[in-house]
Amino acid sequence: MLASVPSRPTFKRLPRAVREQQMLDAAVRVFARRGFHAASMDEIADEAGISKPMVYAYLGSKDDLFRACVNQEGTRLLESIVAVVRDDLPADEQLWRGLRGFFGFVGAHREGWAVLYRQASGRQPFAADIAALRGRIVEVVAGMLGRAVLASGGTEAREPDLTASAYALVGAAESVADWLADHPEADPDHSAARLMNFTWLGARQLLQGELWQPSSA
Amino acid sequence: MLASVPSRPTFKRLPRAVREQQMLDAAVRVFARRGFHAASMDEIADEAGISKPMVYAYLGSKDDLFRACVNQEGTRLLESIVAVVRDDLPADEQLWRGLRGFFGFVGAHREGWAVLYRQASGRQPFAADIAALRGRIVEVVAGMLGRAVLASGGTEAREPDLTASAYALVGAAESVADWLADHPEADPDHSAARLMNFTWLGARQLLQGELWQPSSA
Repeated sequence: MLASVPSRPTFKRLPRAVREQQMLDAAVRVFARRGFHAASMDEIADEAGISKPMVYAYLGSKDDLFRACVNQEGTRLLESIVAVVRDDLPADEQLWRGLRGFFGFVGAHREGWAVLYRQASGRQPFAADIAALRGRIVEVVAGMLGRAVLASGGTEAREPDLTASAYALVGAAESVADWLADHPEADPDHSAARLMNFTWLGARQLLQGELWQPSSA
Repeated sequence: MLASVPSRPTFKRLPRAVREQQMLDAAVRVFARRGFHAASMDEIADEAGISKPMVYAYLGSKDDLFRACVNQEGTRLLESIVAVVRDDLPADEQLWRGLRGFFGFVGAHREGWAVLYRQASGRQPFAADIAALRGRIVEVVAGMLGRAVLASGGTEAREPDLTASAYALVGAAESVADWLADHPEADPDHSAARLMNFTWLGARQLLQGELWQPSSA
């Protein structure tokens, strides 16, 4: 009788993907807290509630693990922006949604932000990954600004001007995000609105062809 | 007779300050080129035309030397901004001068910028120095924006709003500067004008009380 066959013991084994995710999330927390150098595989294993050999077996060396953290958080960051921006919206709505998505990510994943911006951006070879991630975001923003110029009846903007404006906007957003990461009491939407006001009003004037000119040389 | 007394041999010894400056400038070039880890004291000594023991004797370990480079370039950067900003000028002129000073520094000291922004900002304990330097610049900019609000007849701006705007402006400037450092053919004044247009037109609207409001929630 089947009912009398002893069932296989239930090991409560988690699927590999779930285990890996636990390890990665634990690693992000430890890297954010300690910095790359001071973070130990022991502490990461403790944080994940998993043995150290299993961390090595699943995700490799500390360098491998850090790279996996950077990739995960970078992908989450990029997705939080592109998931909410729709090409058919007016430029200011696109920018607003993109900024809310970005600051929403930072507010909800302060540790991920710390790993990306504070740990990885100054450390080779990860700095190159971060520069590439920033480059992709700059391209998205430059494209959006270019469409906005055309939609507002302007002639096609020069590509270097769009790129420089996109770098300015992305840099401003990073800087405010880093402030936000240190102020858990702050509202991410409030930061998005501040930045929107700081940049959009100026961008709109630019789109309308207004230019600031120095009164002296 | 005094004239017949043999003069002391002239050793062409350079004053210590000049020697140190040569070593520091050489070190900045090597750190910018190689990154902190790959930079060797041998290469720095070669670049300075000085023996390695003398580099150690004058400036200490590689860590000490790097710290001296960060301090020197950070001081130069700060001076290039505050030297040209005058409190008695209108806010837009102050901002314009500050931006020109900043981009002028980056254009003339691309290697110093690389050390500060790309090497030191992600490396403890130097990251804390860079954060402190950025904090001082943010304070200068926030103060300037606050005076501009008052001068344009506005009520006293809330300090968190000024600080956030200053972070946005400083971050935008850093991002465009980093682009500039990779484009030796670009004109620093052109970058300053681009950023001025991008931020000032918006800041002016803000100072005049205009606010961007989302049309949807």
